[in-house]
Amino acid sequence: MSGKVDLKGKDILHGNQFSKEEVVAILNVASELENELKNRNSLDILKGKLLATLFFEPSTRTRLSFEAAMARLGGSVISMASAESSSAAKGETVADTARTVDQYADVIVIRHPRIGSAKEAADAATVPVLNAGDGAGQHPTQALLDIYTIQKEIGRLDNLNIALVGDLKNGRTVHALVEVLSLYKPKFLFVSPAVLRMPEEIILNLRNKGIDVSETEDLKKASSECDLIYMTRIQKERFSDMSEYERVKGFYVINDDFIRGLTKKLVILHPLPRVDEISTGVDSYAGAAYFRQVRNGVFVRMALLSMVLGKR
Amino acid sequence: MSGKVDLKGKDILHGNQFSKEEVVAILNVASELENELKNRNSLDILKGKLLATLFFEPSTRTRLSFEAAMARLGGSVISMASAESSSAAKGETVADTARTVDQYADVIVIRHPRIGSAKEAADAATVPVLNAGDGAGQHPTQALLDIYTIQKEIGRLDNLNIALVGDLKNGRTVHALVEVLSLYKPKFLFVSPAVLRMPEEIILNLRNKGIDVSETEDLKKASSECDLIYMTRIQKERFSDMSEYERVKGFYVINDDFIRGLTKKLVILHPLPRVDEISTGVDSYAGAAYFRQVRNGVFVRMALLSMVLGKR
Amino acid sequence: MSGKVDLKGKDILHGNQFSKEEVVAILNVASELENELKNRNSLDILKGKLLATLFFEPSTRTRLSFEAAMARLGGSVISMASAESSSAAKGETVADTARTVDQYADVIVIRHPRIGSAKEAADAATVPVLNAGDGAGQHPTQALLDIYTIQKEIGRLDNLNIALVGDLKNGRTVHALVEVLSLYKPKFLFVSPAVLRMPEEIILNLRNKGIDVSETEDLKKASSECDLIYMTRIQKERFSDMSEYERVKGFYVINDDFIRGLTKKLVILHPLPRVDEISTGVDSYAGAAYFRQVRNGVFVRMALLSMVLGKR
Repeated sequence: MSGKVDLKGKDILHGNQFSKEEVVAILNVASELENELKNRNSLDILKGKLLATLFFEPSTRTRLSFEAAMARLGGSVISMASAESSSAAKGETVADTARTVDQYADVIVIRHPRIGSAKEAADAATVPVLNAGDGAGQHPTQALLDIYTIQKEIGRLDNLNIALVGDLKNGRTVHALVEVLSLYKPKFLFVSPAVLRMPEEIILNLRNKGIDVSETEDLKKASSECDLIYMTRIQKERFSDMSEYERVKGFYVINDDFIRGLTKKLVILHPLPRVDEISTGVDSYAGAAYFRQVRNGVFVRMALLSMVLGKR
Repeated sequence: MSGKVDLKGKDILHGNQFSKEEVVAILNVASELENELKNRNSLDILKGKLLATLFFEPSTRTRLSFEAAMARLGGSVISMASAESSSAAKGETVADTARTVDQYADVIVIRHPRIGSAKEAADAATVPVLNAGDGAGQHPTQALLDIYTIQKEIGRLDNLNIALVGDLKNGRTVHALVEVLSLYKPKFLFVSPAVLRMPEEIILNLRNKGIDVSETEDLKKASSECDLIYMTRIQKERFSDMSEYERVKGFYVINDDFIRGLTKKLVILHPLPRVDEISTGVDSYAGAAYFRQVRNGVFVRMALLSMVLGKR
Repeated sequence: MSGKVDLKGKDILHGNQFSKEEVVAILNVASELENELKNRNSLDILKGKLLATLFFEPSTRTRLSFEAAMARLGGSVISMASAESSSAAKGETVADTARTVDQYADVIVIRHPRIGSAKEAADAATVPVLNAGDGAGQHPTQALLDIYTIQKEIGRLDNLNIALVGDLKNGRTVHALVEVLSLYKPKFLFVSPAVLRMPEEIILNLRNKGIDVSETEDLKKASSECDLIYMTRIQKERFSDMSEYERVKGFYVINDDFIRGLTKKLVILHPLPRVDEISTGVDSYAGAAYFRQVRNGVFVRMALLSMVLGKR
């Protein structure tokens, strides 16, 4: 591993905070840990360390993934699974909650419905804070596990043709992902209905970095031009106007017909949960990597927890 | 222990899945573990292993019992205590949730309000799945802890006269229990109001096995004829018509008067929680075994977790 | 440590249950444990032991503090974070829940909205029960961590001039605190709006013990006369009449102006969460000890858990 990279004490807040060396180091540590777990159920790397998970917004998947990562590293967890049972109900700020939990734990994972809240928590806490999603903002550990999965599925990261499909406006997952992927000279195809286009600011930012970006409403174009489709759910909970949600929710569907029409192998990722945008029949397709992607999340989060606590 | 019984990798879904040899083996392992815990607070049998508890329906008792069992075995737990904080709120299927958590944990315990959901989870997951109650369906670990308690309280399982009392229509506990008990040539007396009778299908199934089954509305008959009364709560949450609930809720009550009227010792079990159907004054009666039954649940669940993970 | 003090098997229910020797012993053990944690992340004192936290009323802070304490002692935790996911929803009494959880765990921490509920749980359980707040009643572990903090911040406990400010009527924290502090010959100044005065019964009880008590509505008086201000939140959730809450909620505020007006160092404590009664600008004031107070809570709860389980 590179001696230059040191994430000890660092917060993990935003997809664009990482240098390429740091991404490489994180993926390498994840891969090492994955190998170490092949013959063992858990390691002792974080024995005695305590993780606090603060979920102000529900997420079984992400919370359990982090908690599993901590358990597999031999550490312990204290957990707030929903804001209902929290001091937030008494009017406490995120900063105060973070500064409080800072007194209990060695590392904090936070999810909160408001953009910028993870940064507020990180500023208030002395221990490392990992952003597990701040509203329509960022979700950087998801981006890293996506990259780790792409590398494992395709064998490389450089010069890929990648389609991102669905709700590109509200999807924090894809916002963080394109930031990190942009380190690897990708060609992006953004596939969305007009009302859910990738924010102009992000597209401009990518083009300023020299990244090739095009946009379409046509999913077929993605399957013929790309190595990988990153599918997303149209997130009902992000819409204020339900009639607009109804209009776009079934816009893109990957089903058996779609798979039969492919002329070459396509890797399909999805941050999950899915609703109707990928049929269950597709799950057995060799390129359908979304459940492997879930497992990879544990290894990447193990890597991040170990590294910010100075153990790798 | 019998060399023939091997539950490694098996799901625990239904009261009728067990052979008599398997029931005997489970009770034996539970008894061994109970003895091993007499001088120690916990064991190392599942050190490094990770249990995920997925409770889509509230249950403090059952969830904490499984989590205590895992802790006493030296293992770790990740937990979803209610569906509010889950991906189910985003429209995810039980199968997808199970397949996701399958990537995190070594064993899954699930409770869900819909019949058949535990089976769906088990079909989707590669790790063992234990059904902790699927709606008005099954609750097999409760049945096994009931049997373990009967054996400890009465000293045998064969040829007992057993009364089941209360809501026999909706009570998943009693449905699983009669399945398992039918391995031991019992004589059953089903005591319920007409609207809450044991389903005809279950009664026919028992009679086809040669089991002696009779029905009554009269609790007194149970106390004079039986060795054991298995009392149940009339479950308000299973009624759609509240006026019907009001009509039957106080139908059967075991109180001090009832106990004073007994002519021989009677073992009284109850899956708990109780509301009014057993008065607290009865708790000190020697045959009142329902809190010992709770403790036995930990040993039986320890046995099942150990066995499906191949450690006993 | 004093050989006379033995809390093994004891319940921790009320601020007035402790002798001075016991308070001294608890503070000493807390201090020892704090020192032992200086070079280590956790200890092995309660390895194999199991804590159950039962929170019928939301409290991130207190629950996570106890669970962190247990983790730092090497023990395990099973947790009910809110009443929604509990048997209480099915009509179970606190006594029955406690007697059930008694079968699972080695020690129980309970918070419940009703006065006296912790005592009911303790009477029903055979294992030690710690009251983490019973409605407007008591919150004794908070009182002990407050005392521990006062001793660390001021260097002594005897003969202090202490102001308690805010909602002294409903604040269980201050009710327990004055009980314990009264062992140390304090001079109390109670600062509150008329509708939120300290209950007459508590004042009489203190005066009967020979404690000097005075009352005022004027916060300025506190800053000139006292060594320490114990600030509290006006608890919205305790008011039935919201117009009355609106009238008193901003009554006392410690802000930068207040700090600039001080003529000597003042120690400021607060049980947290705060809303507006202390501005964030005050956090950097040397006497602002409320986040150190949070950390002290972990050490004091570690001491109590160790002692009631007979390990110190």
